[in-house]
Order: sequence, then C-alpha cells, then structure tokens
Amino acid sequence: MPLTPEQAAEIDALRATPQPTLRAVAPGAEAHLYTAHPVLDHGFIRMVDYMGDDSAICQAARVSYGKGTKSVSNDEGLIRYLMRHWHSTPFEMCEIKLHVKLPVFVARQWIRHRTANVNEYSARYSILDREFYIPQPDALAAQSTTNNQGRGAVLTGREAERVLEILKSDSDRAYDHYEEMLSEDGQQGLARELARMNLPANIYTQWYWKVDLHNLFHFLRLRADAHAQMEIRVYAEAICKVVADWVPFAYGAFEDYRMGGATLSAKALDCLRRMLAGEAVTQETSGMSKGEWREFEGVIGS
Amino acid sequence: MPLTPEQAAEIDALRATPQPTLRAVAPGAEAHLYTAHPVLDHGFIRMVDYMGDDSAICQAARVSYGKGTKSVSNDEGLIRYLMRHWHSTPFEMCEIKLHVKLPVFVARQWIRHRTANVNEYSARYSILDREFYIPQPDALAAQSTTNNQGRGAVLTGREAERVLEILKSDSDRAYDHYEEMLSEDGQQGLARELARMNLPANIYTQWYWKVDLHNLFHFLRLRADAHAQMEIRVYAEAICKVVADWVPFAYGAFEDYRMGGATLSAKALDCLRRMLAGEAVTQETSGMSKGEWREFEGVIGS
Amino acid sequence: MPLTPEQAAEIDALRATPQPTLRAVAPGAEAHLYTAHPVLDHGFIRMVDYMGDDSAICQAARVSYGKGTKSVSNDEGLIRYLMRHWHSTPFEMCEIKLHVKLPVFVARQWIRHRTANVNEYSARYSILDREFYIPQPDALAAQSTTNNQGRGAVLTGREAERVLEILKSDSDRAYDHYEEMLSEDGQQGLARELARMNLPANIYTQWYWKVDLHNLFHFLRLRADAHAQMEIRVYAEAICKVVADWVPFAYGAFEDYRMGGATLSAKALDCLRRMLAGEAVTQETSGMSKGEWREFEGVIGS
Amino acid sequence: MPLTPEQAAEIDALRATPQPTLRAVAPGAEAHLYTAHPVLDHGFIRMVDYMGDDSAICQAARVSYGKGTKSVSNDEGLIRYLMRHWHSTPFEMCEIKLHVKLPVFVARQWIRHRTANVNEYSARYSILDREFYIPQPDALAAQSTTNNQGRGAVLTGREAERVLEILKSDSDRAYDHYEEMLSEDGQQGLARELARMNLPANIYTQWYWKVDLHNLFHFLRLRADAHAQMEIRVYAEAICKVVADWVPFAYGAFEDYRMGGATLSAKALDCLRRMLAGEAVTQETSGMSKGEWREFEGVIGS
Repeated sequence: MPLTPEQAAEIDALRATPQPTLRAVAPGAEAHLYTAHPVLDHGFIRMVDYMGDDSAICQAARVSYGKGTKSVSNDEGLIRYLMRHWHSTPFEMCEIKLHVKLPVFVARQWIRHRTANVNEYSARYSILDREFYIPQPDALAAQSTTNNQGRGAVLTGREAERVLEILKSDSDRAYDHYEEMLSEDGQQGLARELARMNLPANIYTQWYWKVDLHNLFHFLRLRADAHAQMEIRVYAEAICKVVADWVPFAYGAFEDYRMGGATLSAKALDCLRRMLAGEAVTQETSGMSKGEWREFEGVIGS
Repeated sequence: MPLTPEQAAEIDALRATPQPTLRAVAPGAEAHLYTAHPVLDHGFIRMVDYMGDDSAICQAARVSYGKGTKSVSNDEGLIRYLMRHWHSTPFEMCEIKLHVKLPVFVARQWIRHRTANVNEYSARYSILDREFYIPQPDALAAQSTTNNQGRGAVLTGREAERVLEILKSDSDRAYDHYEEMLSEDGQQGLARELARMNLPANIYTQWYWKVDLHNLFHFLRLRADAHAQMEIRVYAEAICKVVADWVPFAYGAFEDYRMGGATLSAKALDCLRRMLAGEAVTQETSGMSKGEWREFEGVIGS
Repeated sequence: MPLTPEQAAEIDALRATPQPTLRAVAPGAEAHLYTAHPVLDHGFIRMVDYMGDDSAICQAARVSYGKGTKSVSNDEGLIRYLMRHWHSTPFEMCEIKLHVKLPVFVARQWIRHRTANVNEYSARYSILDREFYIPQPDALAAQSTTNNQGRGAVLTGREAERVLEILKSDSDRAYDHYEEMLSEDGQQGLARELARMNLPANIYTQWYWKVDLHNLFHFLRLRADAHAQMEIRVYAEAICKVVADWVPFAYGAFEDYRMGGATLSAKALDCLRRMLAGEAVTQETSGMSKGEWREFEGVIGS
Repeated sequence: MPLTPEQAAEIDALRATPQPTLRAVAPGAEAHLYTAHPVLDHGFIRMVDYMGDDSAICQAARVSYGKGTKSVSNDEGLIRYLMRHWHSTPFEMCEIKLHVKLPVFVARQWIRHRTANVNEYSARYSILDREFYIPQPDALAAQSTTNNQGRGAVLTGREAERVLEILKSDSDRAYDHYEEMLSEDGQQGLARELARMNLPANIYTQWYWKVDLHNLFHFLRLRADAHAQMEIRVYAEAICKVVADWVPFAYGAFEDYRMGGATLSAKALDCLRRMLAGEAVTQETSGMSKGEWREFEGVIGS
C-alpha cells in the first residue's frame, strides 16, 4: 500500500472541494487529479496539477501560424499535422506536475531527462522510510545473451529464491544499520547526509516532477519503449494512461507518429523502394550492416 | 486600442464562464485572466493560464526538505527562507502563460531569455498588421554621454519633431510597400517570407510565452531594472503587477531579496566592515576601481 | 565582400600561428578555422573554435556503456549505432563555436533554437553597418499557392524589378534616416537603442553561436531541409560542409539516419507491410488523410 | 589509488604527444590536461578537454558590445565588468569537459545541475568495480543540532568505530552478493540492470561532464560553499584549482564577486545605511527575522 492514511485522507479532502476557475479545464485530467496510481510494489504516480488541454495546443499554433492554420479544419487534424511535421512548440504550451514515488535506481535513469523541474525528497534533511523494491518472481530475469543491456529468461528454482533472499535481507540489514547510525539514543547519532550512503539503490524516494507535454512525449517515447528497463517502463505506461485522458488528440497523434512509428535511414528507404518495385533485397545487397538489417526486418515485419 | 473587437468579445466570453476544477486556484490570478493590460502604444500583456500558487511552492519544498521545513512555521516565512538561500527549484513548480503584443526590437531582447516556451506569430505564414511603435515625445531621449547603452536628456524642438516624422513616415512607407509586394492584384505577389524583410523593427508582433516562476523572476530582475531599456521595462513592470497578485508571498520575497537587494563583492564587504568600525574609506583606499566605487556608493547610499 | 580588411588581416594572422596542444585535434576542422565562408550577399559563417572529434564521441560512449561497446568493433560502427538508437549524449560531448553574419529576419528564426549560447552584436551599444540583404533575381519567388509557408514561381519582368527597387530604396532611406537621427552634428542625437527601430529586417547583424553537436544536428535537420526558407537553408548548408570535415563519421551517420531518412507513422508502416505483401493500397484504403498519403507517397517514391 | 595502471599509462601517452592547433590555447589548462587530481578515497577529477580562455570571453563580449567595450581598457577590467553586471553570455563561450569518479550519493546531488552534458558509466550495460567511499575518521560527524542539513561534532570512540564497521561490512557484503547474483557459474546469472539495485549509495561511479564556464561558476558557487556537503565540496574545490589556472582573470572575478561576495536584501541595505549614519540597529529595530539578522551579522562581521 503506497499511501499513508494521512496522504489518503488529504487526497480525499482535495478531491471533495472543486473551486471555480476561468482557466482551460480538461475533464479527463480532473478525473485523475491527486489519485495515486500504484506502480511496482510501493511506488505510485499521481497528477498534482496540469496546465492546458488539446485546445490550448491549437490556440498556440494559431498564434504562430495565423490564417495558415485555417486550412486545417479541426483541432484533431491540426494536432496531427503539428506532430507529423515536428512543430514542437505548441505542445510545450501544456504542462503537467506529477508526484512520483520510485526506487532510487529508477530515479537515476529518469533524471537524465534534463528538461523538467524536480523537487526530490532530501535524505540530507530527512529520514527515508523503510521501503524497498523487491521484484516479483516473474521479473527476476537473467542477463540477455544477445543484448548487453537487456534481460533474458526468467530465473527459476533455487537461483530465484537466493536472489530474493539476498535483496530482502540486504535491504533490511542496511536499513537496520541506517537507523542504528542515526539513533541519538545513548550516542550522538551520525549526520543524516552521511548515514544515507549505506542505503541500497532499491530504496524508494519520491519527487515532484513538472514537465511540458513536448518533453514528456520525448520521455515516454524512450521509457515506454519495449527496450526500456521494465522498472521504469511501468511508470511511463502509467503516465501514458493519464496523458491519454488529459489530451486525447495529442496522445492519439503521439501514439500513431511516435510510439507506433519508426524512423528509416536513407539506405533503408532505398531498399524499400527496390522491394516495392519487385526486387528481392537481401542483407548482402542492402548496403546495411547485419544489425541494421535485422532491425529493418523488424520494422517492415517480414 | 490594442485589441480587436473580436478579441475583446472573446475575452468577455471567456471571463463569463467559470468552470469547476480540483486544482490549486489563485484568486489574485483569476482576477487577471485573459484581461489585456495595455503597454506602449499598441502592445499589451495578458495572462492566459497559470499553474500553482504560493502554497504549491511550499508543498514542493516540503517534499524536498521533509520534516526539516517544519522549523519554519508558516508559508510566508518558508518562501522567504527559500528565496534568501537560493533554493530555486520550488519556485519552478509554478508556471505562467502570457499573451504578449510587442515591437520586434523588444521581442529580440526578450527572446535572449532561453528558458521559456514561445509561439510567435509567423510572418512566413501570415501577414502582419499595420501597427508600429512610435515613442511618446517624453521617451525620445538622446544617447547618454556617460553610458554606452543608456539614454540622456529628452530631445526637444525641431530635432524631436524630425525624429517622429522619420519614424512615422518610414513605417508607413515600409508597410505600403509590404502590401504592394504581397498584392496578387494584377501580379503574382511576392512570398510572405520575403516581403516581411522590408518591415522595420518597430512593427508589432505577438506571442504566447510560458515560463516558470523562478525563470520569470530572473527575467524581471534584469528587465524591470532601472538600467533596462524603457520599452522592455514597461512590459516587465506590467508583468510584476500580475505576479504580485498571483503569488503575493513569493513576489514580496522577490522584491525584498532580489529587486531591492544588491550583491556586494568581497572587496566591498571588506570596505563596509572597515567603515562600520569607524574608518573613513575612500576609493583610493578601497582597492576598487572608480567604476566599482561609484556603484558601491550608490548601494550604500552615501 | 563580407569581411573588412582588418578582419581579413586578423584571420590571416591567426591562421599563421599554430600552437601545441594536448587536446584532441581534428585536422578537418583546423583547415576551416577562422576562414569565412560567404553566404548570401554580405553574410558568412566561420568556425572560431571546436571541442572534440569523432574519437571523443566514442570515448564518451565507452564511459557510458563500458564493455558493452566492445561488441562494436570500430569507431564508425559505434557512431552509426549511437545515431541509429538515438543515444544523443555522446554527441553532446563535441562543441563548435561559429561567428555568423546574417540578416535579422534569418537571425529571428535561428534564435528559436534555444539550446545554444549566443553573443549578438548589440545595436543598443553600437552602430550597425549599412549592409542589407537584397535577394538575387532568381530568389525572388511568389507566394506558393499550395503551401502557406512556401514559395512558388520566380517573379519576372516589371514585378521583379519593382520588388528590388523597393527593397533597395527602402533600405537606403531607412539607413540614411538612422544616421540622421544618430548624428550629434548640430543636435543632441537620438539614443542608439531607439534609432535602431527604424531599420528593416534585411539589415545584417552578427553573432557568436556555440552549440553542441547533438543540438547542431537537430538545427541542421530542420534548417538544411528542403522546406526551410532558402535564406536560412544556405547557412545550414555551409555549416554542413564544415561539420562533414570536422567529424566525418558522425556527419555520415547524420546524413544517412536523419537528413536522408524519414519517420513513418504506425498507419504508414501498416500500409507498407500490406504493400510488400502484394496488396494495392490506395489513400482510401490507407486510413490516412490526403495530406498524409501525399507525404507517404513522397517517401516511398511512388 | 584511483587510477588503474592502464589509465595511468594512457594519460602518460596522451600527455607526451602535443599536436599543433590554430585554436586558442590556455597554457594553464594544458598543464592539467588528463591529469587525475585525487578526491576522497577513490575518486578524482581530471580535465579531458577545454574550449576558450580569458581572451575568448572578451572576444565574445566585444562582438556583443562593439565599440562600447573600448572604454574598458584591458581584458581583466572587461571581465570584472562583465561579472559585476551579470553579463553571463560571454562566459558561456568557454567550455570544459571533465572525467569525474565519485560516489553515487554525490553524483545524485551533482546531477541536479541540469545545464550540462553527461555520459555516466552504465550499470545496466557493465559491471561496477568494488570501490566504496568510507569516510576518514575526522569526517564522521554527528547530525547538527541547529541545522537540519548540517553536521555537528565529530563522532568518537565506540560510536565512530561502529559506524565505520557498518559501512565497510555492509559495502563488502552488498558487493559479494552483487557478484554472486551476476555469476553465470552453474546458474543463469541475474541481469545486470537488476543486480545493481543491491549496491549502496557509497559505491563509486564515473562520468564525463561537460559544462560552460557560466554554468560551472554557478555550480561552484553552490558546491564550493561552506554549507555544501563536504563530500561534494571537495570535488568543487578541486575543480576551482583547475579553473583558476585555465581562466585566471575570470576565476579572480568569480572569487571576488561571487564566492567572496554576498547578496543583501532591501531590508538589510536599509539597516546598513542607518548603521553607517551612526544608528545602533538591533534585530528588534531591523525589521528582519531572527534568522535573517543572524545571517546579516555574519556578512557584516559584527
């Protein structure tokens, strides 16, 4: 259960008291506000605020392109046009603020996306809770034999048991020692900024994360991708559901042109044209390396 | 009159229809929403959207600093503490979106602040209106004789008349020719992306500009400053009024610690300590250059 | 001739005096250093400094991916792999600094790319030179009848003459008046920060522009594209030539995967698979709008 | 010893082979290039590349301010002027690239500075080394009783011994288990991206970090400050020494105006003026809170 009773009560109170506003209101976002969507064993994402909606994207585009945008007859068509032609600035006019609880090793990947605002719980100031990510048995995968950064088959039997045993007992011992070092009972108590260094990377942290829609889509494209590590992908997928309700036209365009799309190289386009003209192109005649050809075959589904 | 009747009617309609939201609502911001505040002869700023309020700043800080923030008993005190100690990330949790109409030479200065989102009216796609900034007579200043980037005395008499005459007639002629080149009446009509190059820098453009509160304060500190060019300073001052109503605690802290404050060098602090100890420090004994000493005297008010 | 004799002499002096360094040296970049490559009638680009080379990209990637990168046997292969999989951070490890002279309306488009460092010549402090962009006759195009932001046929005859006449005479008059207003001969002289507002958007400005290779590629992809306005595209093309000599492997990968490549939507990929399986897909059976279908046909070259 | 013999040999080789370049060369930087300066027990910083020098800052400023800069007679004076008046863009024209080896909990603080380029060693791809930060006895401080994020007295006796014992044994056990989980000896071996989660925050990581001089100064002001955590401050101090040799004028101005300077609020300036006029101002008559007054006294040294 990721939320404390106090947090749950605070969310209930916030959700019970709508106030009037003159700003653009997105009904699909209002339905999610403050609600914590569970992710992994102790984590969650919850939308704390948002700015703008599908119309706000079009409004900004119409400032930019003036009468030029009138040739696109409706909001959905305009949004698809903007996404297709990489006009990113109108999407930057929407903003979302999320409260996220996540393991530290996931947070370290996440923060590499620099174009966002972050306030993280500070273990210099405060004491972290005893909450660690322990994978479900079906997430305990072996190192991939073909991909340096991927996972292979699920571990089984004694090996799987041993891994879980290690992760649990090391987490517990590290936290026991963290508390022992901090304790001021009969001793001075180590500074929090030092004691934290004993905690492993599967401990949970939390932060407020604010980002505009264009940069959020960039994050989601990389992190909701099948090649992303599962433990960050589940966060990206939970965010995708919220975004789909908040800005349905923009999210639909994102799914079609980014998530479901693919970028082909000049060489790949050349092969494609030859294949459509009836030629039987092989890796040897493609001009591509084996790796590129394998990826190309994946895209065209042969 | 900066707004078209259509724009004025649209604003009235938007202001007449509040909707319920669960988000944080800032009453002081709601009072400004959509209203165009006139600036210069044809320009304006109007707040189109906002995210967060003073409480949102504190909420983010309390995530970061946890129990550590409890020693500051109230929101205003916490906000002043954050501002004083350059904790900028909580201020980044608020966001504002403005619609601004401004002369091109002002826009060129403004855009140098890169940490913001912008959608500008595009003269590649659309035709600009015949609106030019013509200074008021009391704004027609001579080049400063002491400051390379400043203004001196106000121009008078025939010189002032001649300047206004030039600005008006050159603007008008440039726009007449712009229209003539664009015209498709009996000719092909020059491409808009080319015709615009004939327009002078006092023509008005407009944009949507979205920025977080931390970066907005940075902009305001530089552009609401007495050394900023008057034509951008009046925009910064109009924004200051809106921000003061939106996030009154944060704005108050900004005024005290940034706008009204000053940064003193190590040398200046050393002089100050000697002066407080009774020594009569002069430029010669200060270790400062003449320019620095003059600025130092300005700060300590002697 | 874009350079003053003083500038040309300075460049000759700088190019005559190599100094020893322990840093990575890119011979292809050294050959360009300081040399002004002319662009348009009075503009130029010249590389003033650079950091890193193809090897520096690989070095950074090998820090990130450790032994994982050993499976890629050589630098060119590794760079192509990084580009293909959107691993952008190693490309950020190279940096270039350019001195650019360009018309103001081009500068206004250019500056929309925010992830760069800029120092522009300031018309608040200093007086601009009498240099204006006047298009070559074959660049005087009509507004496109199909594309809101494009050009159509070249103007001819009296219409073309009239456009050139306007651009030249308005530029000259604006500059005469600029000088007249600034003049301190028998009058006070208007402040420079005000007088500049009379100058049209085809006047030349100049700046130092510093950007990392990843963000430069993003700029080049958009601005060296066939849909970019010709007056900025020629700058992008001149930069492309310099970059191709500086980091040949990275530039080759950029050409193949970005400039010459294309992004296909989920719908387009689905059509492609059907076409490769022998189905005769039309716009009506594609699920795409007319605009999308036309662009898709352009990509697959049918 | 932070470097492997291979790394040391590589550094020696690189330092032995200067090559000619036409770029600006900073002799003070060349003397540091590639050399690893030890920090903490296993960490280091080493400069891997740099762009620009003090002259490059002035060159960029002279493009911006044209003849306006001629009133400042020399490079050092110009640089001090730019720093004093917050003209930050010329400092952005210099760039530095560092290779840093540092504990993960330090890296997590460091990465909050977003305006930089980073390539970190990836524990998804590769296996981390068995290197952990274990504080020196005199760095084992108790939690401060007055400052939520600070340190108090040094721990002694049995308490200090016990802390070191915990940190060492937990690190060792965590790494033993990390190796055990990864092992493919008689088992499949857990994926690296999962096994890493067992490692504590005092393990060392490494990265390439590239930043411009303006943003580096911002980082150094916060992290070389007396209030920064000691474990990051020692990195900032090591970088300060390198920067002082690379751009001595800029670093001198930074020391005087930023590191050694102080920002005073409007209220503080008012008190100061009253004190200089002979009034005996106390906290009660200052208008400041107790916290502000205490900090003000610290600045004016009374």
